[in-house]
Amino acid sequence: MITHQSVPRPADVADVRTTNLVVVLRFVRAHSPCSRADIAAATGLNKATVSSLVTDLLDRRLLRETGVTENRIGRPATMLVVDGSPYAAVGMEINADYLAAVAVDVGGRRLLSWRRAFDGTGGPARGTAALAALARRVVARLSADGRRVLGVTVGVPGLVDAAGVVRVAPNLGWHDVDLRADLHRALGGAVDVLVDNDANLGVAAEHRYGPHAGTPDLVYLTGEVGIGAGIIAGGRPLRGFRGYSGEIGHVPVVPDGPRCGCGRRGCLESVVGLAALIGAAGDGPPPTPEHLTTAVDDLATRAGAGDRQVLAALELSGTRLGLGLSVLANLLNPEKIVLGGYYVPLAPWLLPAARAELGSGVLAPDAGGAVLTASTLGHSAAALGGAARVLDLVDAGRIPLLDPA
Amino acid sequence: MITHQSVPRPADVADVRTTNLVVVLRFVRAHSPCSRADIAAATGLNKATVSSLVTDLLDRRLLRETGVTENRIGRPATMLVVDGSPYAAVGMEINADYLAAVAVDVGGRRLLSWRRAFDGTGGPARGTAALAALARRVVARLSADGRRVLGVTVGVPGLVDAAGVVRVAPNLGWHDVDLRADLHRALGGAVDVLVDNDANLGVAAEHRYGPHAGTPDLVYLTGEVGIGAGIIAGGRPLRGFRGYSGEIGHVPVVPDGPRCGCGRRGCLESVVGLAALIGAAGDGPPPTPEHLTTAVDDLATRAGAGDRQVLAALELSGTRLGLGLSVLANLLNPEKIVLGGYYVPLAPWLLPAARAELGSGVLAPDAGGAVLTASTLGHSAAALGGAARVLDLVDAGRIPLLDPA
Repeated sequence: MITHQSVPRPADVADVRTTNLVVVLRFVRAHSPCSRADIAAATGLNKATVSSLVTDLLDRRLLRETGVTENRIGRPATMLVVDGSPYAAVGMEINADYLAAVAVDVGGRRLLSWRRAFDGTGGPARGTAALAALARRVVARLSADGRRVLGVTVGVPGLVDAAGVVRVAPNLGWHDVDLRADLHRALGGAVDVLVDNDANLGVAAEHRYGPHAGTPDLVYLTGEVGIGAGIIAGGRPLRGFRGYSGEIGHVPVVPDGPRCGCGRRGCLESVVGLAALIGAAGDGPPPTPEHLTTAVDDLATRAGAGDRQVLAALELSGTRLGLGLSVLANLLNPEKIVLGGYYVPLAPWLLPAARAELGSGVLAPDAGGAVLTASTLGHSAAALGGAARVLDLVDAGRIPLLDPA
Repeated sequence: MITHQSVPRPADVADVRTTNLVVVLRFVRAHSPCSRADIAAATGLNKATVSSLVTDLLDRRLLRETGVTENRIGRPATMLVVDGSPYAAVGMEINADYLAAVAVDVGGRRLLSWRRAFDGTGGPARGTAALAALARRVVARLSADGRRVLGVTVGVPGLVDAAGVVRVAPNLGWHDVDLRADLHRALGGAVDVLVDNDANLGVAAEHRYGPHAGTPDLVYLTGEVGIGAGIIAGGRPLRGFRGYSGEIGHVPVVPDGPRCGCGRRGCLESVVGLAALIGAAGDGPPPTPEHLTTAVDDLATRAGAGDRQVLAALELSGTRLGLGLSVLANLLNPEKIVLGGYYVPLAPWLLPAARAELGSGVLAPDAGGAVLTASTLGHSAAALGGAARVLDLVDAGRIPLLDPA
């Protein structure tokens, strides 16, 4: 029987050196400050190799020496830390009701975090122009601080293909928008631009910076006007054939429920999306995009004050959310499920019912070990994840080399 | 911001050699017969390295020289093929109504394929004893042929943890059965035993030997008494936190449908599992496990003869199957979904309705590119996948070394 499988690429010495540069960079990031001897002891690389790798990383200004020496047995050691000053990675997000931007240095320190209300439903031309203006401001600020921008990743609530084209973003009303090319042009061609689904970036942020960082089987649920899941499985992002994974919004949860944008009735998004959440507990007309934050804050205030209508609505929403998540947990068996966005301020009232339903709806005992929790990263998760995605490229071996000053 | 991520292991020269042994073995398996020069040209490894690697693989009797030389420009070349004679990998399966065993050589050639009706619902002691007896017969046969058995993997329709303990197998009535230890003991401790979920093994078989071998985003659906999904995502098995992924049987598809074993109503398994399929189209009492094959064949015969009741039942079942698969496709965006087991003989009548529902139920255009098709591997898919799992260990670098004869 002849089989046609991809043949793996052979390893060679250049691969080994790049791998080991990344090993050293990541070790120093996680264990800063540390000495060359610490690196050798922890990684198993010999001291001469570590010295050579560190010299390379110092030349690239990814590491710097602190000059601090600690009292040890033997010779004092020069300590190394990540050099936060020369580079920046940028993430941005457009959603139905806001724009956001975050920049971090190579060590993960946050350099800026901007968010502003914005009606994202005004069409792709208006949205793209607003993103471009914001990106130019961010890049200008970082450049003024003497930083080189390693790249910009933009999160969009919709299906984004491998080329960075937004195929469908239902809650923005976008179809086939070549956002990557448009932004690259708007930035004068000087900055690498990536575009990705907002939930994919949210889970990237949780995986790198959240309290559950490094969890190999991790799911992030956006709680915005729409609902999407970002999935890390076996330590790697699960993107699917065309990059369209994570569309949890269309799990059927309420028989003969309200009509969903997809044409069916009672989909998860149609009953626990933001509009449904506010509608279920409120009396007035649905708020406009600019007033969603206020409406959610109002909901949380009423729940905190013991408003029975709001409490009942949130408990029911939590149960339905748990039902949708049990379908996901049966399929993926995640270790952690993190609720993001507008679910965060409502989590104290959503979580108990959602956890109960998750526990009873998953075939595996104890929900397969899945723990449901609320994000601590707030609405900037997707933008932060965009910046993380740029740093992932460094960790994958695209190690920057500064131009000579 | 300090982050705690796992630091990748540094690469070293031993890793490089093992990687390259696997590269050469896999290349020859896919492009047999071929010369050392072919390997060097295709892999980028230099000729001296290839020669040394090939010598090692000849010593281990994983490759052999055919002695055939082809007419080429330059010197005649000795051709290499995979040596199918010294080793065997074994896969087995227990299900509610049958036992199966398959053995393959390192080149993937099938050495034996056994299947027999068996009432798997008679409890774990009886099931384990039957598996042990079958395993002993298989190992004895292969040993008599002079082969060393590299390992045995057993597929079970249920949740199997990382230690090979069957936590729950609802359709066998098993709870917390340490099948791996029991079988290892029953085989005198002489053979490595692995235990895995049947759907996980089914997708392993499709990924290695099916017509869609190598597809990075591939799903296999068991169509047995229960329904489970085996998932390959990004080229790797998706197992989840505790190995309990793929439980698609409990997606809600029929509001207020029949009561499912999980306690809810209208789950996919309760309406398109084998019992439901036969019940929806039949008149008599549900068949006993030993008679399921006959009952399904009868259904196919009646459908082929245009029996309206059967055709309507299969079309409805196809639609419901498509609805369940659309939930999976929205979450995972697979490229291929392969229906296995008893779905195969019924595929001509299930597939059209299932494809239509999949197309309309997935948010991404064109079902995200997902193609739904029937397996060509038949009921031995899980057992074949068990053998493939043993060979995966070789490909992962656990390269066997024959004892001196």
